[in-house]
Amino acid sequence: MTAGKSAETARPARRRLTVDRRREELMAAALELFSRRDAEDVSIDDVATAAGASRALVYHYFGGKQELYVAALRSAAERLESRLRPQGGGRPLDELASGLACYFDFAEEHAAGFAALLRGGPANRTGEVGEIVDGVRQRLCRQVQKQMGVEEPGPVLRATLRSWIASVETAGLDWLEHRDIERPTLERMLVDQMVALLAVAARHDGDVGRLLEVLGERPA
Amino acid sequence: MTAGKSAETARPARRRLTVDRRREELMAAALELFSRRDAEDVSIDDVATAAGASRALVYHYFGGKQELYVAALRSAAERLESRLRPQGGGRPLDELASGLACYFDFAEEHAAGFAALLRGGPANRTGEVGEIVDGVRQRLCRQVQKQMGVEEPGPVLRATLRSWIASVETAGLDWLEHRDIERPTLERMLVDQMVALLAVAARHDGDVGRLLEVLGERPA
Repeated sequence: MTAGKSAETARPARRRLTVDRRREELMAAALELFSRRDAEDVSIDDVATAAGASRALVYHYFGGKQELYVAALRSAAERLESRLRPQGGGRPLDELASGLACYFDFAEEHAAGFAALLRGGPANRTGEVGEIVDGVRQRLCRQVQKQMGVEEPGPVLRATLRSWIASVETAGLDWLEHRDIERPTLERMLVDQMVALLAVAARHDGDVGRLLEVLGERPA
Repeated sequence: MTAGKSAETARPARRRLTVDRRREELMAAALELFSRRDAEDVSIDDVATAAGASRALVYHYFGGKQELYVAALRSAAERLESRLRPQGGGRPLDELASGLACYFDFAEEHAAGFAALLRGGPANRTGEVGEIVDGVRQRLCRQVQKQMGVEEPGPVLRATLRSWIASVETAGLDWLEHRDIERPTLERMLVDQMVALLAVAARHDGDVGRLLEVLGERPA
């Protein structure tokens, strides 16, 4: 009796797990397709076929292609951000370097999702998708500021940090496209770029000069 | 008789001019709306109202919203590129600086179109739109290479130039959003960023070091 009851209780939990996993599989298949083709060229049937599911199941879980697209992007964004959560305690530039290594690990392991999220390409790109991408950028920016001990950046530092993040995104996409630079080289280049961009910013804003000193670098 | 015939002949030309101007007006109204709101929230009626035209006229000229959107973006891209055509003859970094000044002139005068083109935001973003944006980027990149006398960039220089262009785009959007940095300051910063990024690249690629010398800069 007790065993029977326990099995009864366990069933919904097992079912839930299966539902979540099925949903994940559909999203993974969708991300893979969306990152290789324009969203308008990907049908619900394509996603169903790629995931070995029925068209009805895709509609059941997501309602429609736009919802599936947004859910898949959101999942990619969450995975990226959970990777980038800083460990804390290290020197800011070392933390930046390990953050970059995580970023490129993600880009490499989830190449399709990374490209879908950041290439800014696929059709049916809605306000919702724009918000996901901008949200990731803003949180990355705040994370970098925190690592550097900056509370509220002035205009010059804000523009510089945004430029650096754009540079990292572009380098990530360029690397996925060509893979003709060694990853460690590219990651070192991007840390060096941060220092170089801050040194340029320091010529126009004394606060950035002081920040560079805190980072153990000398303004150029 | 001669006067009458001449008027007859002139009519189609006048009509053509009006058609082109009407089309331009509709595109300008569309760009303005598309850059402030997501494309799916902009109706053909909105565009018609903004341009003081009928809904039927918009359909007559463009067939539908997607076509109107693509036409408006293409027109913004063409205007930007015609501005940036290099004068030639100057020192590469001076040419870069005047190119940037033209770029920001464009951003300022056509703020709506610039944001619509580069913010990468609006919905119904199709492969066609992605191609327009990527096309502009690639042509800007080739233009900068040409100014610097680079035929075929190696991987490190290619990634660096793409990063710089991303940085310029981001700075342009940041500036339109905040306008809390003086334009000449921002333009000078971006030229300095190019030199700084090349100096970083030169540490990983000897050819970039030689390029810096040609530009009259010393590798860091």
